[in-house]
Formats: sequence, C-alpha cells, structure tokens
Amino acid sequence: MNRDTARVIKGDICYSKDKNNLAIVPDGYLVCEDGRSAGVFDRLPQSYQEIPLEDYSGKLVVPGLTDLHIHAPQYAFRGFKMDLELLEWLNTSAFPEEARYADPEYARKAYSLFVDDLRKSPTTRACLFATLHLPATEILMDLLEESGLVTFVGKVSMDRNCPDYLREEDGDAAARAVLDWLEETAGAYRHVRPILTPRFIPACSDRLMERLGEIQREHRLPVQSHLSENPEEIAWVRQLAPWSQFYGDAYDHFGLFGGEVPTIMAHCVHCPSQEVERMREKGVYIAHCPQSNSNLASGAAPVRLFLDQDMRVGLGSDIAGGTVLSIFRAMAEAIQVSKLRGRLTGDGLKPLTMEEVFYMGTLGGGSFFGKVGSFEAGYEFDALVLDESRIPHPQKLTVRERLERYLYLSGEDWILHKYVQGRKLF
Amino acid sequence: MNRDTARVIKGDICYSKDKNNLAIVPDGYLVCEDGRSAGVFDRLPQSYQEIPLEDYSGKLVVPGLTDLHIHAPQYAFRGFKMDLELLEWLNTSAFPEEARYADPEYARKAYSLFVDDLRKSPTTRACLFATLHLPATEILMDLLEESGLVTFVGKVSMDRNCPDYLREEDGDAAARAVLDWLEETAGAYRHVRPILTPRFIPACSDRLMERLGEIQREHRLPVQSHLSENPEEIAWVRQLAPWSQFYGDAYDHFGLFGGEVPTIMAHCVHCPSQEVERMREKGVYIAHCPQSNSNLASGAAPVRLFLDQDMRVGLGSDIAGGTVLSIFRAMAEAIQVSKLRGRLTGDGLKPLTMEEVFYMGTLGGGSFFGKVGSFEAGYEFDALVLDESRIPHPQKLTVRERLERYLYLSGEDWILHKYVQGRKLF
Repeated sequence: MNRDTARVIKGDICYSKDKNNLAIVPDGYLVCEDGRSAGVFDRLPQSYQEIPLEDYSGKLVVPGLTDLHIHAPQYAFRGFKMDLELLEWLNTSAFPEEARYADPEYARKAYSLFVDDLRKSPTTRACLFATLHLPATEILMDLLEESGLVTFVGKVSMDRNCPDYLREEDGDAAARAVLDWLEETAGAYRHVRPILTPRFIPACSDRLMERLGEIQREHRLPVQSHLSENPEEIAWVRQLAPWSQFYGDAYDHFGLFGGEVPTIMAHCVHCPSQEVERMREKGVYIAHCPQSNSNLASGAAPVRLFLDQDMRVGLGSDIAGGTVLSIFRAMAEAIQVSKLRGRLTGDGLKPLTMEEVFYMGTLGGGSFFGKVGSFEAGYEFDALVLDESRIPHPQKLTVRERLERYLYLSGEDWILHKYVQGRKLF
Repeated sequence: MNRDTARVIKGDICYSKDKNNLAIVPDGYLVCEDGRSAGVFDRLPQSYQEIPLEDYSGKLVVPGLTDLHIHAPQYAFRGFKMDLELLEWLNTSAFPEEARYADPEYARKAYSLFVDDLRKSPTTRACLFATLHLPATEILMDLLEESGLVTFVGKVSMDRNCPDYLREEDGDAAARAVLDWLEETAGAYRHVRPILTPRFIPACSDRLMERLGEIQREHRLPVQSHLSENPEEIAWVRQLAPWSQFYGDAYDHFGLFGGEVPTIMAHCVHCPSQEVERMREKGVYIAHCPQSNSNLASGAAPVRLFLDQDMRVGLGSDIAGGTVLSIFRAMAEAIQVSKLRGRLTGDGLKPLTMEEVFYMGTLGGGSFFGKVGSFEAGYEFDALVLDESRIPHPQKLTVRERLERYLYLSGEDWILHKYVQGRKLF
C-alpha cells in the first residue's frame, strides 16, 4: 500500500450495489488505497487506523458521476434557441456554433469555460464529442488532462448532409483525419482517451463508416454516436441506408455497434424491438438524456424496458440539447420523464425509482470506464463530498431523504470535495 | 410625484406586452413613480432627469414573477418521497408534515426558512396554502408581511377524507374557524390578504362548501383550490359529488368557481371540454404547475388550448409536489412538458414558446393581483435585476438569448435586486 495516496473519508456514505439496492452507511468510513476503494466500514478496521482521515461527518459522500454524452463545443450555447426540434436545431444552432472551433483561439476560450464548469460539477468521468477540427480537439484534450477528470474524447467525423463549412471532404479524407489525430495524440495523455465518433448516420457516408470500422478493428477503440432520437431522423436514415433493417443496423453493418469493445448510443427514444434486441446482444451502452429529449421534443426513452432486460444504461447531459451539466439533475429528470411517459402513453411501464437513476448515474454509466461508479472494494476511487448548506431543513432527515432531495434541488456546483482515481481535485 | 419613492433603473429591460410579444429595450430606462411604472424609455425623458438613477447597465431587468400556487408548509419536505402519486403522496408525505404545524414553534422555524427563501427567489407575488391551524397561519402571515412580498394566504379548510389528526370537525366548525381567522387578521397587514382555501372537493363536505360559498359572497373573497389533477382524484370526485356535471362544477355549484371575484384552480391537467368552457366563462385562473405534474405522474396540462382561448393562465411552483421555488424554472419546464405532451400523445398542440411562458410567469399570473406583471405605464412596480455572473459566455449574446438561457440555467436565488410596489427589498 502506498501511504501517500491512501486516505480514509468519514461521512454519510451512499453507493449502489446494483440497480435496485442503494447501500447507505451513516457515519461510515470509506478507505482508499492505491487509487481504489478498499471498502466501506461502519467502524474503521485496525489496519487502516494510521491512514490520514478526512472527517466529513454529517456530509453526504457518494461516488463520482459519469456523463455518457456531452457535446463540449455546444456548452457555450446551452439554454437558448430552444424552441426547435432536432434537425432544425442542428442547422440553426449546433452547426454554426461548432464551426467557430476552426479558430483555436475561440476554442481555447470556450473550452476553458466548459472544462472549468465540468471540473466543479459532480461529474468525474465523461464521454465527449468535440468537433471535426484537430487543433481544437487537442486543445480540449489538453484542458481535460489538466482538469484531472477521466474522459473519452471524440474528434467528430462527418462528411455528408452538413453545411459546407462543417463537413469533411469525403470518407477517406475523414478517415485520414482520424488517423492523424490518433497518431498526434498517442501517448500524450494519462486521463484522456480517444473514442471514434461518427456524428450520426445522416452525416456519415457509407465509405466513411467502412473506414471507421477498419480503424475500430485495428485500434480496438470504443465508439460513440446517436441512435433513434427523433422520428424524422429515423425516417431519414431509412432513406439513406435502405439496406439496413433498422437504424442501429446501419452502425452494426460496419462493425460500429458494440461487441468486444463497447459502443455508446445516445438517446434510444424510439427503438423498435429488433433494435433493442441487437443492443442487448452487443452490449451497447444507452446514454439516456432526459432533458435533451424534452427540449428537442424527441420524446421519452422506455428506460424501464432497458433496465428490466439488464441492458447497459447510463445518463447523459447531452449539452446543449440538454442545458444542465449536473448528472444529479439528469437523475431527477429521468424519473420525471418516466412518469410523464407512463401517464401520457398509458404504456404501463412503471416509473423509474431513485435507486435506479442513482445507479444509472454512477455504476451504470461508470462501468464504461471499467470498475467505476461504486465504493465496493476494488472499484476506482471517484468520490464526491456534497454541499447541502443551501438547503437547510427544520427536521433531522435520514441519509436517504437527504440524498433524494439533493437530486432534485442541488445546483451544478454544490460539491465540496472531489476525488478521481484517488487523487483529490479540490 | 413623491420624489422619495421615485427611481429610475437603467439596464437591459424585458417585459411582456401580451402573450406573444416580449418587449426588449437594451440599455433602457425604467421609471418608477408612486409605486408604479411610468414606462420604459430608450432615452430618459427630461422630466425624469432629477430622479435618482440606479445604473444596472449590462444586467437584465424584468418584472417580478408571480407564483399562483404554493403549499408553504410543504416547503420543508420538497424533494423527497417523490416516488409516489398524488393520493398516496398526500397520505404519506403531505398530511403528516402539515400536522406538525399544530405546534407554533415548529411552524415559526419551518416557515422562517420558507419565507427567507421566497424572499430571495424571483417571486414578488404569491398565492399560498397554509394549513388548517390558525396560530401557524398567522405566523406565516406575519413573516410574509415582514418580507415585503405581496401575497394571498389561505387558512386551509378540510373536514373529510383526511386523517383524524388533520381534519376539522365538520362543515360548520370549519366555517367558524375561517370566520375567526378573518376577524383576527382583519386590518393587520398591508401586504398580505386572505383567500378562501377549500383543500379540494374530496376533503371538503358539501356543508363546508356551502358555508364557504356564503362567506365568499359576504366578504367578497377570492378562492383557491385544486382541479382535475389526477385521474383517480377525478373519479373520486365523481363518487363524492354524483350530482356534479364535472369536477369544476362541484365548486361552481357552491359559488366557488370564479365570477366577479376570481378563483385560482391549480393543475387543470385532465379537464373535459365542458369544464374548460366553464372556466373560460367564469374567468377562472389556471395555475399551471409543470414540475409537480411530472413528479406526481399527473400528466401535462394542455396549456396551448387555454392560451388559444385567451383564458387566464399563470404558473405555480406547487411546492412540494414541485420541488423548485423559482418560477423561471417553471417557465422552462412548462415548455419542456408541452413538448413531451405533443410528442407522446400526438395531440398536435404546438409547444409553448419562450414568449408565452414568460408572459404566464409575469403578466398572466400577475393580473390576479391587479395591474401587475408588466412595465407598461401604470403597472405596479415589481422588478428584478438578474445575476448572470455564474453563466459566463464566450460571445456577446443578444438580450433575448440571455433571458432565454436564464430561464433554463438560473438557480433559485440568482437575484441581485428586488423591488415590490416600488419598495426596494434588497
């Protein structure tokens, strides 16, 4: 054991054991050794008595949260031009803003604001879309590396159906850009890893997808993209890939739909049952983004169905389809939209519970990064000490009650202390 | 003109002219005389040059917001026990908590936290439910009076279908309690007014409703209650008042459904068309509470229908069915749930726009208080200077863009200055 990095944290400790079970240890001890949890204890075992103890008695201590889906360059325009649906919003908001990242100076300014806020947020792990620009993407990776967070970053690939000012020449040129990026950044980072990022089927030619498939197999890289978000988008994919059985099949055809190295698909709001079945078989991660799905009038994903089949489900802020960075807020909204879905469609699916959404935001999404998202012994040590000072209460609440209201009421930066892989960020 | 209370405020001024038109005056001048707006000007007219000017250049200045529906005693438990629907939630959360207000000491402690937060929030006008307890209700009124906000407070009436520990003996006893309360508080407050508050039909016997109708006519008091929130609740009303044509008719039968002195009905999620028509005829105010309707799985009200018929619609936080006090957040959520409603039901109703929800949170609800909720000349001077410091931006945004993102991103207390009826609260 390395005593320099070992620590004991005392507090009201909460973490998911699985999707239905939330472990709560009031006044417990959480031990970190060599960047990993050595477990949670009611009483501190003799063998850990000499490790430095940080006493946060009376404060909530939870695992760091994972955001499975963020568009980093869209952070600057979160919260406006929201009165639009997906395809119109892409053309009038997302694409013009992303084009600005051709300018490294603008990229540094805007990405600095973003990474600063992400660092202060409850998120310790994130999967991010950058833009198609190499210099800007490397600036983002540099800033994230400095932040101490652990992330996957994707240089975006897109060569069709986008405005001229934001499109790669063709599939081969786009693939070359990916290879250049991988080469330039190889070995440069400890905490930032690359992820293949075809924007979505409408923006990626068959040739581009074929080449990305080759790169995936050669480099064994994970993949992230979008799936079945909006009915118009789905109809468009049917036109563009008439040979596909369903939207997800258009990724799978090129070997970009899970399997040995996992894939994240954001949204999955309107998946036909065949698609759900394929996702289950291939172990595809679903990034559920409830706020974005409301803002862009996409709908509400049937998360209950995914959970009942033990599929891999995490949460995403989907900045800037979503406006709020905090995955605690995404937890509350996942519950809220599941209730509205049930009421408005009469589908009979039970609303999500607090246990389930907490699992999705910690262990569910965290598992994309390995043993991440829990305090069980052996898990990487990502932890948050929460700040409840702005929500005083006239009674003594249980730890579970305090955690639940934190989901509903906390601001984006109500974090007192943050640890990633055993390192204390603040 | 009283020069002591006159003031000029300079800033980026936004206010609703009507539900479709948002007036935006960048670097404008807003003049207050004798507690009322004298109008907004691009350049300060000569006649106002001598009035003290408060320079908030670069800051957003908007009318104070109106919250048409809050349960003050529920503030303490906002954000937990949320995994329930209305009727179960009332029995396991709301009623046990409200019973604590039999103890004036607890009431003072809990109401103080609530009123402190309401004062710091964007709300300048509010309609509140207290509990059935007289001393606690008067404590709430005292605290609100001190806060400087302008409010209607209702001692709650309830004499059936509630637990023994939170029920008045019968209709006559409950009516006597209302008369005692009116007598005790008559003339005691400048900014707090009483409002008749039958909890909802299931909790009020016919005799109680009859007596409240008499009191209403004698004292010409406004009324607030709940309407068509949840399908089970509606079915229950049908059993309890088999003589009624629809839920709202059960209020109207006793003269407690608008008319000359207005009534506020919270929720209105599942109104049949006859009920909507009656509300329109009687000028009933609809308190739309989008967050609560999500949390309690009630559904999403068809606000587009109400607006298209020029009905009276405002917003409510519905603490603690809703968890968040800020009516800016209610504005954003009103848009979000209108989008989900459209997508999930396919009802063809267009989503609400930013202009419409801003209107609902200012002028729409404010009109319940008279000429309130706008900066047009003659309106009572309720104003907010907003704090955007925690959402920096890499570009220069338009005033409208800044206002829109403020709806989506602001915290509950991001208010720099607050004025009510021309008085500066902070």
